[in-house]
Amino acid sequence: MSELDFAKGGGLVPAIIQDEQTDEVYMLGYMDKAALDRTKESGWVHFFSRSKNRIWMKGEESGNKLRVISIFEDCDSDTLLVKVQLHGEAVCHTGHKSCFYRKLNMEETS
Amino acid sequence: MSELDFAKGGGLVPAIIQDEQTDEVYMLGYMDKAALDRTKESGWVHFFSRSKNRIWMKGEESGNKLRVISIFEDCDSDTLLVKVQLHGEAVCHTGHKSCFYRKLNMEETS
Repeated sequence: MSELDFAKGGGLVPAIIQDEQTDEVYMLGYMDKAALDRTKESGWVHFFSRSKNRIWMKGEESGNKLRVISIFEDCDSDTLLVKVQLHGEAVCHTGHKSCFYRKLNMEETS
Repeated sequence: MSELDFAKGGGLVPAIIQDEQTDEVYMLGYMDKAALDRTKESGWVHFFSRSKNRIWMKGEESGNKLRVISIFEDCDSDTLLVKVQLHGEAVCHTGHKSCFYRKLNMEETS
């Protein structure tokens, strides 16, 4: 594989989390090099939390964990797509299965 | 809708681009407020290019444009999921349909 470009995002790359079976997009998180290595080694998704300033395993508190099936990098090596199996009920801390449960109104400016 | 959090990402939010029919994830781009408004108004995906430092319409040069079907924001309003119809052959500038065409080796460290 090519070298991932962590520098562009200040040490972090965005990681899109997608269900491997249904193709539903669940969330976007951020990984540093260590979080990505821990994700690969353990087979469970780990992120770097910008607010907690540390690596955490998704589900370490909620129990809703993400089993890694495969990981893809994009053409310029600064974004990841992680295909997962959800072990649990929901990915979002709100209880929704996906974090993307609110639709924007196309008629309104942002 | 809630107010989108552009501040967290220095004026930009990441936007995941997903095919509305097949659910394939094509790419990740970045939008500022103006790019999002232009996307909504025109119905075609616009990004803010960090390298060109300007708004551009995806496909303005390649002709491979992305028609917007719907846009979702995530639970903390700092990421977008844009469901699209691809008008053209490929999303990636390499000619691949998706930018995520390279699989990481899970046995190697990053």
